[in-house]
Amino acid sequence: MNTEFVALLLQDLREDQISVADADLTTFAIDQGPVTDYQLPLAVVWAESVANVQSVMRAAAAFGVPLVTRGAGTGVSGGAHATAGCVVLNLTRMNQILEINPADEIARVEPGVINGDLNAAVADHGLMFAPDPASFKISTIGGNIATNAGGLRCAKYGVTRDAVLALDVVLADGSLIHTGHRTFKGVAGYDLTSLFVGSEGTLGIVVGATVRLKYLPTIVRTLAVFFPSVQQAAAGVLALGAARVQPCILELLDGPSLRELDRRNGSNLASRGTALLLIQFDGLAAVAEEEVAAVELEKIGGTVSREDPQEAQRLVELRRNNRGLDVDAENRVGEDVAVPRSQLVHYITALEEMAVRHGVDLQVIAHAGDGNLHPTFSVPSFEPGRIAALNAALDESIDKALELGGTITGEHGIGQYKLRWLGLEQSEQVLGIQRNIKALFDPAGILNPGKAIPARP
Amino acid sequence: MNTEFVALLLQDLREDQISVADADLTTFAIDQGPVTDYQLPLAVVWAESVANVQSVMRAAAAFGVPLVTRGAGTGVSGGAHATAGCVVLNLTRMNQILEINPADEIARVEPGVINGDLNAAVADHGLMFAPDPASFKISTIGGNIATNAGGLRCAKYGVTRDAVLALDVVLADGSLIHTGHRTFKGVAGYDLTSLFVGSEGTLGIVVGATVRLKYLPTIVRTLAVFFPSVQQAAAGVLALGAARVQPCILELLDGPSLRELDRRNGSNLASRGTALLLIQFDGLAAVAEEEVAAVELEKIGGTVSREDPQEAQRLVELRRNNRGLDVDAENRVGEDVAVPRSQLVHYITALEEMAVRHGVDLQVIAHAGDGNLHPTFSVPSFEPGRIAALNAALDESIDKALELGGTITGEHGIGQYKLRWLGLEQSEQVLGIQRNIKALFDPAGILNPGKAIPARP
Repeated sequence: MNTEFVALLLQDLREDQISVADADLTTFAIDQGPVTDYQLPLAVVWAESVANVQSVMRAAAAFGVPLVTRGAGTGVSGGAHATAGCVVLNLTRMNQILEINPADEIARVEPGVINGDLNAAVADHGLMFAPDPASFKISTIGGNIATNAGGLRCAKYGVTRDAVLALDVVLADGSLIHTGHRTFKGVAGYDLTSLFVGSEGTLGIVVGATVRLKYLPTIVRTLAVFFPSVQQAAAGVLALGAARVQPCILELLDGPSLRELDRRNGSNLASRGTALLLIQFDGLAAVAEEEVAAVELEKIGGTVSREDPQEAQRLVELRRNNRGLDVDAENRVGEDVAVPRSQLVHYITALEEMAVRHGVDLQVIAHAGDGNLHPTFSVPSFEPGRIAALNAALDESIDKALELGGTITGEHGIGQYKLRWLGLEQSEQVLGIQRNIKALFDPAGILNPGKAIPARP
Repeated sequence: MNTEFVALLLQDLREDQISVADADLTTFAIDQGPVTDYQLPLAVVWAESVANVQSVMRAAAAFGVPLVTRGAGTGVSGGAHATAGCVVLNLTRMNQILEINPADEIARVEPGVINGDLNAAVADHGLMFAPDPASFKISTIGGNIATNAGGLRCAKYGVTRDAVLALDVVLADGSLIHTGHRTFKGVAGYDLTSLFVGSEGTLGIVVGATVRLKYLPTIVRTLAVFFPSVQQAAAGVLALGAARVQPCILELLDGPSLRELDRRNGSNLASRGTALLLIQFDGLAAVAEEEVAAVELEKIGGTVSREDPQEAQRLVELRRNNRGLDVDAENRVGEDVAVPRSQLVHYITALEEMAVRHGVDLQVIAHAGDGNLHPTFSVPSFEPGRIAALNAALDESIDKALELGGTITGEHGIGQYKLRWLGLEQSEQVLGIQRNIKALFDPAGILNPGKAIPARP
């Protein structure tokens, strides 16, 4: 590690804010995404203030050192993977909730605040921070913003972008800007806030956020509806839509997913049906909506079970904990495509056909209300010879989602892992515009290089 | 008018798509915003297809002719005012609804589709296009997108940006790009869609949009709650928030506004109280929410009247028709600031104090659920000597909104009229970033020049 660079950092940071220890370099080399190009960072730096971030940014700019900013590292697209010669800038110590204003229904937070901690803090005021990625108990608001994270409640409450009113951002030259507004509405100038949300640390470093809170529902009703086939469950999503009721949670789990959950948790979901729609309604309409949903889903062959709050929580927890299935082992590949809801049934049928043709297993879990699917292809255990089949099925699943009018990523982001597919979805011209925007904000190319948008071909 | 330029246009357009007639130049010289720099366009061009727009754009680029794109011209910030040497590109003939997909809950439209026409068309499917600017019966979706229009239902349903999933945009070189996704969620690449929404035709020309529809509520309950003072009415907004109920409409009208409505419409609102909160709840929770609201507002001195559907519609229509009050005469000035909701009471008190001090009259109407106010300062009739007092009060109202953590424009946009105030809200650096983005998309500066962001100082 360049001693002059470290000396510069130490002008503003304490020694315990910088590490070049192997254990740290290894720990912070990757997030939870698949690793295709393993690189160790040169150092890990823990910023504790906006001024710290500015110092690190200026030092990095002066020495041309790439910065990979990260929160809890729960991303699953490799957006926080280290790249060659980089310093990892860890923001988890910037974890103060700066303000909760229950009358304005907003909070101001540092980027390292844990999503679940913010939710716990605002619950006392009858409020919630709606974006709820499955990792919400450990993921940071800054990471949620970097990836424009989704979650279970999006269909009703929107994604992270919809909850972010204003941002404080350190730019590539170390300067600090403020974007957006504290008010719910505001149309002064271009929407720079939305440009930073989801940009994966490639345009600037988010060091503060003003977020809009929503009303924490006091009434929640939960239905577990089992179907004889996954296609019928998917059709149930459309039936709910046709009945014009809006669940806050609408998750689809196919048979293999239920069996895996049972195996891991000792539950007995698979014995209750082939596929499950786990549905929650909340707010003062929840009871009425639940009734409409029960009637409509029974009509199309669903077995409706009204779950008590304890069982409801258990089921939702089971679903959330299922997150790691996507990509946590060498014998699995998975993605987070989204398709228009009318295509859910066709898409799941196509996935099943692909799995059979490539001789691999398939599990499908979906935020079905959004048409956002997490299909996972797997083989029983790691066999080098089967990797090609897994990847062929995976590529095909991406192509099919696009063919049906979908997107390659509903909520996880491009990161490093999905760069190879972005050109299938977006034209070279649109990619070029994004490269130009990137160059505007980061002319030296040191902000999380090689992420979010592909390099010029 | 340059004959070579016209000849180039006529390669792709019919003669009846181009006019240089005085009547047309005058009609399309301005929108409904205040006029501070009156300019006639050189010509008006009616595009009827994407290819037409591309032709006009290419011709304009070739001859360095500025293009001011417009829909119905209902904007109130001068975003569609003609500028020196410009051609006005009128998109109102591109008014086809290209697709309504009730299962996907989306529609694809040309930019000239009238907001109200889209709503009428999708209502048969139990759906609505939620953004509802007061002008929705005559304003176009393209114009709504250009200004990121708000409306009455925003607090619950969001603004135009929240309803736009994907855009087709003709760029300054005449090329056509597609941004966004047809799915509810999608995080592939930077959020170019949000960058174009609200950019007032300064970055590209929106020639198509994919919009997300929401469920058209079958149950609507309306309360008219009169208060002894406008401050108490504003406090009612906070009381509803504290009770954690979410109206779809929450409009505040002060005494002078009620008297003006009565005078114009023969109603008797002013006799019922000093200030009015007009409140609507919708959906399956509406009845329960209405009860909570009635109880809470009676507690703080409101006189609650449950209105039948006919009277409810009449009241909402009265409110919507009040829009023109803001800026429709020389003896009035008005704006659309927004403040954090906790500041509503203080802000209204400050406005009243300003009006007294400057010796002008004041009316306040607000989308109070958003903290978005439309205060209007006026004098009884046009008197040149009083203009300075009106403008002084107006400037002060802007300063005060910013001091309270607000924004200079909640929903109308910067256009031409509010350029002078944008620097009060945003730093020179943030303005510079926006100029750089503008230069990236429009290096020749021919897309609606002099709008949305101020020129370099």
